[in-house]
Amino acid sequence: MADTKRNDKWVYNFGGGSTEGTTDMKNLLGGKGANLAEMALIGLPVPPGFTITTDVCTYYYENGQTYPASLEKDVANAVAHIEGTIGDGMKFGDASNPLLVSVRSGARVSMPGMMDTVLNLGLNDETVKGLAEKSGDARFAWDSYRRFIQMYGNVVLGIDHHEFEDILEQHKRDEDISLDTEVTAEGWSFVVDEYKRMVQTELGKPFPMDVHEQLWGAIGAVFGSWQTPRAVTYRDIHDIPEEWGTAVNVQAMVFGNMGDDCATGVAFTRDPSNGENMFYGEYLVNAQGEDVVAGIRTPQSLTIKAKEKEGSTLPAMEEVMPDIFKQLDDVRETLETHYRDMQDIEFTVQKGTLYMLQTRTGKRTMAAALKIAVDMVEEGLITKEQALMRIEPKAIDQLLHPTLDPSAHKYVLARGLPASPGAACGVVVFSADEAEKKAGEGHKVILCRKETSPEDIHGMHAAAGILTSRGGMTSHAAVVARGMGRSCVAGAGELHIDYDAGLIRVREAVVKEGDVITIDGSSGEIMMGEVPTIQPELTGDFAAVMEWADDIRRMDVRTNAETPEDAETARKFGATGIGLCRTEHMFFEPSRIQNVREMIFANNAQSRRDVLEKLLPAQREDFVALFKIMQGLPITIRLLDPPLHEFLPQSEADMQSFAETAGLDLEQVRQRFADLHEMNPMLGHRGCRIGITYPEIYEMQVQAVIEAALVVQNESGETVLPEIMVPLVASAEEFVAVKKAIDAKAEEVFAEQGQRVTYQVGTMIELPRAALTADKIAEHAAFFSFGTNDLTQTTMGLSRDDSASFIQAYRMQGIFEHDPFASLDQEGVGQLVEIACEKGRIIRKDMKMGICGEHGGDPESIAFCEKTGLSYVSCSPYRVPIARLAAAQSVLRARDAADIKQTKQRKVA
Amino acid sequence: MADTKRNDKWVYNFGGGSTEGTTDMKNLLGGKGANLAEMALIGLPVPPGFTITTDVCTYYYENGQTYPASLEKDVANAVAHIEGTIGDGMKFGDASNPLLVSVRSGARVSMPGMMDTVLNLGLNDETVKGLAEKSGDARFAWDSYRRFIQMYGNVVLGIDHHEFEDILEQHKRDEDISLDTEVTAEGWSFVVDEYKRMVQTELGKPFPMDVHEQLWGAIGAVFGSWQTPRAVTYRDIHDIPEEWGTAVNVQAMVFGNMGDDCATGVAFTRDPSNGENMFYGEYLVNAQGEDVVAGIRTPQSLTIKAKEKEGSTLPAMEEVMPDIFKQLDDVRETLETHYRDMQDIEFTVQKGTLYMLQTRTGKRTMAAALKIAVDMVEEGLITKEQALMRIEPKAIDQLLHPTLDPSAHKYVLARGLPASPGAACGVVVFSADEAEKKAGEGHKVILCRKETSPEDIHGMHAAAGILTSRGGMTSHAAVVARGMGRSCVAGAGELHIDYDAGLIRVREAVVKEGDVITIDGSSGEIMMGEVPTIQPELTGDFAAVMEWADDIRRMDVRTNAETPEDAETARKFGATGIGLCRTEHMFFEPSRIQNVREMIFANNAQSRRDVLEKLLPAQREDFVALFKIMQGLPITIRLLDPPLHEFLPQSEADMQSFAETAGLDLEQVRQRFADLHEMNPMLGHRGCRIGITYPEIYEMQVQAVIEAALVVQNESGETVLPEIMVPLVASAEEFVAVKKAIDAKAEEVFAEQGQRVTYQVGTMIELPRAALTADKIAEHAAFFSFGTNDLTQTTMGLSRDDSASFIQAYRMQGIFEHDPFASLDQEGVGQLVEIACEKGRIIRKDMKMGICGEHGGDPESIAFCEKTGLSYVSCSPYRVPIARLAAAQSVLRARDAADIKQTKQRKVA
Repeated sequence: MADTKRNDKWVYNFGGGSTEGTTDMKNLLGGKGANLAEMALIGLPVPPGFTITTDVCTYYYENGQTYPASLEKDVANAVAHIEGTIGDGMKFGDASNPLLVSVRSGARVSMPGMMDTVLNLGLNDETVKGLAEKSGDARFAWDSYRRFIQMYGNVVLGIDHHEFEDILEQHKRDEDISLDTEVTAEGWSFVVDEYKRMVQTELGKPFPMDVHEQLWGAIGAVFGSWQTPRAVTYRDIHDIPEEWGTAVNVQAMVFGNMGDDCATGVAFTRDPSNGENMFYGEYLVNAQGEDVVAGIRTPQSLTIKAKEKEGSTLPAMEEVMPDIFKQLDDVRETLETHYRDMQDIEFTVQKGTLYMLQTRTGKRTMAAALKIAVDMVEEGLITKEQALMRIEPKAIDQLLHPTLDPSAHKYVLARGLPASPGAACGVVVFSADEAEKKAGEGHKVILCRKETSPEDIHGMHAAAGILTSRGGMTSHAAVVARGMGRSCVAGAGELHIDYDAGLIRVREAVVKEGDVITIDGSSGEIMMGEVPTIQPELTGDFAAVMEWADDIRRMDVRTNAETPEDAETARKFGATGIGLCRTEHMFFEPSRIQNVREMIFANNAQSRRDVLEKLLPAQREDFVALFKIMQGLPITIRLLDPPLHEFLPQSEADMQSFAETAGLDLEQVRQRFADLHEMNPMLGHRGCRIGITYPEIYEMQVQAVIEAALVVQNESGETVLPEIMVPLVASAEEFVAVKKAIDAKAEEVFAEQGQRVTYQVGTMIELPRAALTADKIAEHAAFFSFGTNDLTQTTMGLSRDDSASFIQAYRMQGIFEHDPFASLDQEGVGQLVEIACEKGRIIRKDMKMGICGEHGGDPESIAFCEKTGLSYVSCSPYRVPIARLAAAQSVLRARDAADIKQTKQRKVA
Repeated sequence: MADTKRNDKWVYNFGGGSTEGTTDMKNLLGGKGANLAEMALIGLPVPPGFTITTDVCTYYYENGQTYPASLEKDVANAVAHIEGTIGDGMKFGDASNPLLVSVRSGARVSMPGMMDTVLNLGLNDETVKGLAEKSGDARFAWDSYRRFIQMYGNVVLGIDHHEFEDILEQHKRDEDISLDTEVTAEGWSFVVDEYKRMVQTELGKPFPMDVHEQLWGAIGAVFGSWQTPRAVTYRDIHDIPEEWGTAVNVQAMVFGNMGDDCATGVAFTRDPSNGENMFYGEYLVNAQGEDVVAGIRTPQSLTIKAKEKEGSTLPAMEEVMPDIFKQLDDVRETLETHYRDMQDIEFTVQKGTLYMLQTRTGKRTMAAALKIAVDMVEEGLITKEQALMRIEPKAIDQLLHPTLDPSAHKYVLARGLPASPGAACGVVVFSADEAEKKAGEGHKVILCRKETSPEDIHGMHAAAGILTSRGGMTSHAAVVARGMGRSCVAGAGELHIDYDAGLIRVREAVVKEGDVITIDGSSGEIMMGEVPTIQPELTGDFAAVMEWADDIRRMDVRTNAETPEDAETARKFGATGIGLCRTEHMFFEPSRIQNVREMIFANNAQSRRDVLEKLLPAQREDFVALFKIMQGLPITIRLLDPPLHEFLPQSEADMQSFAETAGLDLEQVRQRFADLHEMNPMLGHRGCRIGITYPEIYEMQVQAVIEAALVVQNESGETVLPEIMVPLVASAEEFVAVKKAIDAKAEEVFAEQGQRVTYQVGTMIELPRAALTADKIAEHAAFFSFGTNDLTQTTMGLSRDDSASFIQAYRMQGIFEHDPFASLDQEGVGQLVEIACEKGRIIRKDMKMGICGEHGGDPESIAFCEKTGLSYVSCSPYRVPIARLAAAQSVLRARDAADIKQTKQRKVA
């Protein structure tokens, strides 16, 4: 509790040797305030100022928008601190030698919707004259004054921007000039009068001339902006607690626009786009900060090297102000050495003196993040562990998939869920067959479906991207697309897909078959036409970081794969085994589906066995191929899981064609289809329930696995490690029954072939009941694999296919913090995982346990798995690098937590 | 462990003052052996004998079908005990004075498929002569011998019955006689020779003449019969453990067929059909036991009273053998006083001496069970508590529903699940509308559907019975039928219902619309034509027993009801509140469904509100009616639960008609239908998820509840206790959001009307996640109601609509002990209930918790609820009496368990 107790120090000074904050005080001082203090502390030239703490913001809202009693005095003292530090007799509000200040908001994290900046505060009809005199530049003084009125009028007084612009435009028309720079001192003075008149008219009271009233107005505006709708919405979306509050920074003004010995600029200490260790930034001589970003004048490079690289003719700062540049370059080194990370800085040069106005950790592309991390390790600035913690695992996706060109123009038609990353562009098709056909003709295609089913796999494979109007982050389309590395936008509910008419209706718009669209599976955006994309590139930095991660992580990272292509991709990305091989995908191959269907239509076990006999060689070949690719790494093979009706022909035409080939009556086919129909197939006759009622299916699969293992073991001489996994187990009795049949079949094959292989039989834990009775199951099962997709569905009573519609509403209302299919619900589903682990370990302390749901590729869920002590995570091939990094970060975070605990204990002792 | 340790005493004698067993030793001696010993102990005339224990059976199967080493000697000693006790110089195998014995099996519970009886063992070509001489009746001796060969040949040697019958028939044809009684001594002697010849031919070896070989053959046959397929199947179905084993009883023969001073008979100590305290039985002079049941001679009454009542002309035993009858009547009293329950006895009179051959607790009808229990309490024989424990709660159903006339002939066409008890007969109809129409014309109808939906409710109400081809014990049809007290057979998978053709195919048979069928919802049988039924009658005994139960039970018994009819029925049966009022049923009323559908089609919240406004008065009336009926008893009202698509028109015609009435485009209707379609509606957009995304629906319902409560409270002056229940809650956040809206609406109504009512807001616990986070939810919820139907579905991943097909297979294979929808899965689902109770009570120790799933009417589940400390169970109206009794029994069982524990502790101390 001591940590969170509010003290009654409301204001912290910085600059001039009496700095009271540090960079560690971001919670209290906000990001900007803490870093200003830190820069002052390490001796960088920071104009003096003070920070009103976030506690004041909290107090403000807890006490009917009033301030703590002492605040007025504290602020007055802090203003005096600025005056004292800056010296030269400058006083806030002094007519002859006025001190001007800036007022800025500063929350813990930067937040759009918050009041940004008021500059030049302290100017009024009197002080403007003092400024003119002191600077010797009346035009500068009046220009500063009108800028102040404009900013203050807008952000503090709430007057629309265009009211000011209209006046300025009118003046320029009257004077017949076109540029602001052509306005004279008298002109600005006239504009100031007009501004003040307009404010009086708009507000019914004059623009405040009292500088203290100005200051408190700006402070109040910052605190008030914490609760604007835009800020509130942003906090909701980004999970920023309301109680964090914002701080207010008040700082002495320095001017980059007092002449040619003045300048202002922004810079990154390294190149944020590729990470190169080179000073990267822009500056303008005789300008204020806003001019750099306004785009009226072309900003110039800092270094000669950059200037040359960009082919610019404008002189670099290194040439124009070599001494100041040298100072700035030193600052750059000081900051990097101090913060040990690439910094994003703002500076101003006033009459030959350099002032630092801001520093913060610089945003960067993923490629830059990797390069900077690797370089800084090599430079000895940071450790490998620190480097690893710097990289956002989810962002690695950027490296593996094409991204939209950020500079391209795009018309966003609608939005869905970002179900599988990467941007893709192609012609719209509505069926898997058409996708395959068009792709065969050399077109890139986007397969658009209401939802996909295993029957669509070949079309998904042929497509560049997949778009569905239904389903969530773990819908069939999403899962398969991620596995294949195809871009996918799922559950775009605004799209009404009409297969018959061959078109998609989106509100008023219509997209027809053959139209070109672009989808971005990283953002969920759907765009008309072709939007240019940027292809990714894997560098040596990526490999280096991955190796460091592998050295540190405790958990294995396996992959979910059933095709040789997927297995190979995953191996390339560093998977050390297959955690989930879904055998049903193999049943859907066009060459096999007829046999599978005939098996379903067989009247008795013997006829089923006869048809299964025909499927056996193909199934055996599947496993032979996988065993070869995985070269002795473990492979968890899940026996048939989906309900049989998933394999039946769905359309009338398919039924007819199947009936003809199989020599069945069409009516019979329809009847069987109707008989197998289920109200809730998710909770129906599937998983080991099929294995128990039709034991011959699992027998065939086990025979194929064991025979394949023997084939590969004999050929390669290497050990093959099949782990046979029983799906949808609800009770120990069920598992025992299936395991008995598996062992019997395996022994039969061993006896027939006169050789053995080592194999294990384990179970999915994907039903709450299995988790609750895990001790009983562990007495018989060699391993547990948490199928957290289904476990989420059953624990929460939430269908992944049907919940997209309301999960969005739940997230907006703050009922769900995350989509539970994207990031594991640790409180509920996670509790069951923990219960199962605990109970399983009672029976066998070192029992092998892993996770094979979609959560295996989600960093937060991976951290949970680390905490729970799982042996491995398994995820789709393209998520393997994410998982490797996230697994390493989880270990490092756990170490940190342990260190902190130890330190605390040491203190107590 | 001491209790189960096997001692090495393998044989227990009885009779003649050296009885070694008691009635408490049923586990070791079997039911028959233990009761023979007990009768001997209390001085009743039991022919001497001995019991070979069930431990021998276990030993036999554990040791490759061999016997304990000492058994041969033990049996020899026991035979000597019989010889010594019976005296008169009789010896087993003695040619001149032979002792004959019977050999019978005797497991703990009587079990079909087990070897029944071998009589007259000890006869051979020599001893038959001694028997003839001693009895002075050669015909009797040779008849006994041929009976023995026939029985032994069949049950021990495995020779088919007809082989013996053929020989006897041939002999009678040769002699030109038709009755067995006409066969002479010489004739039987000839038949014996023929029997022996046939045995020699069939088996290749002679019929055993050695009496010891005969005895060991019979003992082996009893043990062998423990593992016949029929016995094994019976044990599987009735959950009888294999390790129980059977005992063997060997007993001196007594003969009821040695002349007119001999007789044999069976009796119940009270009338088993109505429970009257009157000696009830049959006897035959000069007959062996099998003759009484063979039906060749008409059995005679025991008492004059019974004879007169039946209008028989045959003399009663009371007249023919008054002395013996007096002895038997004394035995009757002795047995009832001793066993304190109605007994089923067998006796034989040999030459004027009475022998008791068997006693056991007599089977009885439910009406008899009640009367006997009440009478015995009045007679001071048993306590009320003992009386309550005697009545099987499930059997109470017999009293509340018509049953099939057991004497009627029936042709069983197929079998389904016994989903709602009672027999019903009527014409087959295939739609709810047709059911209503035909019923309106005065026909009794059986509504036959693949499955039912809320749209069928009016038809189900009109029907006498409901028959479905799909769905389990908690399918819609089953639940609603039980609620209405309609007979229902559900999930009869053999039935192929063809709506279009208007017929049902069952294998080769066809049942057409309009055909008469009978269904028995207590057994699951479906019969062609009309089978006569017996109407039930509620007696004062029923009321008395229910009152005793109410005095003893701790838990309240509420009902699941939403219609006034159901609520009234439940009150009549003693419900003390409504535990579940499903408001959606009210939405399906024909007068409202159009509005409900228009509400679903509304584009925005305001249009929805406008339509809901029209539904409000009707909904308010619903609650007014219920509040009035329940007269201040608590009513738990569940807000709308099912997904909206359940309310949409399903057929093309319905869609068209709806579109026309609502002024919508048919295409729009189809589109909306398709949009709302869900893959797994059970896990879809339902429950409080609807309340959160369409808050106006719950607002209307809350307004209706609160306004209704105010109306009734004002009218009656009594307190109304509405408990508003939020369905399908998965997290505390969800509950809080809905509760906030409920409270706001309630306050709005209070403000409007200027008065208040007390109401509570609680939640269903029907998802695993809710149970796991029950502590968080309990911080806001006033009560928990366990919806164990859905909790079972989600915990086990088992759809109640789709699982009937494989649950049967699971039960046969012993994977499921019970249908988890009929009896709560205590290990898995029960664990979640316990977790939720525990977590809830951490927050509020005395939190109100109940169960409202179908399990609320299942005795075993009720016992679980008692153990878990729930406040109440709620069940369908017709199950209320069952629940009252079961709740009382649970208390008594818990007391017994506590007593036993205390006694044990005392012993230890």
